Amino acid sequence: MTTKAYGAHAADKKLEPLDIERRPPGPHDVQIEIAYCGVCHSDLHTVRSEWEGTLYPCIPGHEIVGHVSAVGGHVTKFKVGDIVGVGCLVDSCQTCASCDEGLEQFCETGFTATYNSPTPDAPGHTLGGYSQRIVVSEKFVLKIRHPEEQLAAVAPLLCAGITTYSPLRHWKAGPGKKVGIVGIGGLGHMGIKLAHAMGAHTVAFTTSESKRQDAHRLGADEVIISKNPDDMAKHASSFDFILDTVGSSHDLDTYTALLKRDGTLCLVGAPEHAHPAPNVMNLIFGRRAIAGSLIGGIAETQEMLDFCAEHGIVSDIEMIPAGKIDDAYDRMLRSDVKYRFVIDIASMAN
Amino acid sequence: MTTKAYGAHAADKKLEPLDIERRPPGPHDVQIEIAYCGVCHSDLHTVRSEWEGTLYPCIPGHEIVGHVSAVGGHVTKFKVGDIVGVGCLVDSCQTCASCDEGLEQFCETGFTATYNSPTPDAPGHTLGGYSQRIVVSEKFVLKIRHPEEQLAAVAPLLCAGITTYSPLRHWKAGPGKKVGIVGIGGLGHMGIKLAHAMGAHTVAFTTSESKRQDAHRLGADEVIISKNPDDMAKHASSFDFILDTVGSSHDLDTYTALLKRDGTLCLVGAPEHAHPAPNVMNLIFGRRAIAGSLIGGIAETQEMLDFCAEHGIVSDIEMIPAGKIDDAYDRMLRSDVKYRFVIDIASMAN
Repeated sequence: MTTKAYGAHAADKKLEPLDIERRPPGPHDVQIEIAYCGVCHSDLHTVRSEWEGTLYPCIPGHEIVGHVSAVGGHVTKFKVGDIVGVGCLVDSCQTCASCDEGLEQFCETGFTATYNSPTPDAPGHTLGGYSQRIVVSEKFVLKIRHPEEQLAAVAPLLCAGITTYSPLRHWKAGPGKKVGIVGIGGLGHMGIKLAHAMGAHTVAFTTSESKRQDAHRLGADEVIISKNPDDMAKHASSFDFILDTVGSSHDLDTYTALLKRDGTLCLVGAPEHAHPAPNVMNLIFGRRAIAGSLIGGIAETQEMLDFCAEHGIVSDIEMIPAGKIDDAYDRMLRSDVKYRFVIDIASMAN
Repeated sequence: MTTKAYGAHAADKKLEPLDIERRPPGPHDVQIEIAYCGVCHSDLHTVRSEWEGTLYPCIPGHEIVGHVSAVGGHVTKFKVGDIVGVGCLVDSCQTCASCDEGLEQFCETGFTATYNSPTPDAPGHTLGGYSQRIVVSEKFVLKIRHPEEQLAAVAPLLCAGITTYSPLRHWKAGPGKKVGIVGIGGLGHMGIKLAHAMGAHTVAFTTSESKRQDAHRLGADEVIISKNPDDMAKHASSFDFILDTVGSSHDLDTYTALLKRDGTLCLVGAPEHAHPAPNVMNLIFGRRAIAGSLIGGIAETQEMLDFCAEHGIVSDIEMIPAGKIDDAYDRMLRSDVKYRFVIDIASMAN
């Protein structure tokens, strides 16, 4: 099945229209006509081979929503016409301890990512959601219960949503907890909405005074300008949990100092250059931790989507046609987006 | 009450005999004739003002064991002749949330350390256990249930013991868990003994092949020479918990890579120079954490002493007279001690 897509032939090439092949649906497969695909910073890192090891042609995209157009004979959870999503994972071993616990993102033999992972399908590596169609094993397809008209704004939940939801749940954000969200971008704006909806006292950290109003609108109870040491000092040792969504190198000590005893600073961004070495005394005095978190498993991703549907939560998006993807990357690098680009896949038909 | 002690008048002075004053016991106080005092690396850091802020004269020592010689009128837990210990804390606010939970080491207004903390007593800061006598509030005095003849080797439990016991308990070392101990020194040798006694599969990491046999004798089920990348790689993603007792700057990534999903690398040493910045990807992939831990509260210190008495655990020590303390510091800096110096306080009588 030839499918139109947008991708790049090399790290230094712009994205362009390409034809790719999708496998015919096997007995356990779901074939999806993609309606929208969110644009994640990982897309840019991969297509430009900034993390090395990119296989070309590279078709990025792992915030995928669309409609089921065919199902294999053994598929029970989905039928033609269903509104569905696909996130960062399209397969895993299904036999290791992590997969057994529904934590496929930590699959001990390595999960199959939605793009740039080895696969038996042509061309030998997975191709992502900047395309009109995708075929995915039923186990890795998510039900979407939001109304159809919100579909484009649901797309970023599949990565930005679960990346923030999973650690907030794991470290028990909720009523009576003071939770910080560092950075108000694609991930951070979701973190604020989710922490607020979970009932936590939600504090947004930003370097930009200009984002203060918006942070409140997104659900922040308080906003701290992180460049102001006096404002930071007022919150010393007061946070149960801080979710740090900033992907560039920055000082972590200013945040560990704000944690209560036994509090955790959780990093979900992978900086190109290492953060400055953290001050160990901040960890020892207070038994604090610096941890990381990676997206979420399939069951938790479904839980997140259902939670968002119930609470009316979607991403704040700016829709673009596929032809504008390189411009969108440039703007994303300047943080010039509120807060996530989403590709209208219908634009590829022209 | 004039008491003989050993201490220093300035950061660049050797330790020498000094006379100090101890307060007469108040209604809640216990007066202790000190028999032995362990020598901790913190003693050296403080007396040489390597952490800055040392108040002189400085009398170090917070691994104190001895016998009760007097008690205040309201003291109920101790009587004259009891064998007791005093560790790193001699007071705390007793009203904050941490004190309420028995975690006085995290007292939110700051605990009173056994030496170098402000106190109403002369000379205005606390004076430690390199002295013949100490007077301590009953709440901060520990019962020792080991036989009298083990008393010298019990002293290091009051700091080295609790510093390793507390994180091992907090992160649930026990049967079915694979636990690493990094460094085989004053702290590490206690960590190996304790993790083994708790029933964990205990793995010692050392840079010295020469310590292999000793690590096994201390209770290690396996010993890994950490300089050998092949040996390290065999243990990738297999540890539930690693306790890092090394006080000098070193690479943490080689250890985070050995943690299972949700595993923690806990640091209890405070390096003079920062560790190299840790690789965030090691934390993100595996939801791993780097944490810190600080000694333990009074209730847990008592629990540790009782656990050690029950399991016949003491420190491996080398006894020295007070006059040899500067030599002992020099040897400690060369890691030339198996594994803790203990001052025979009787030597001060001469």
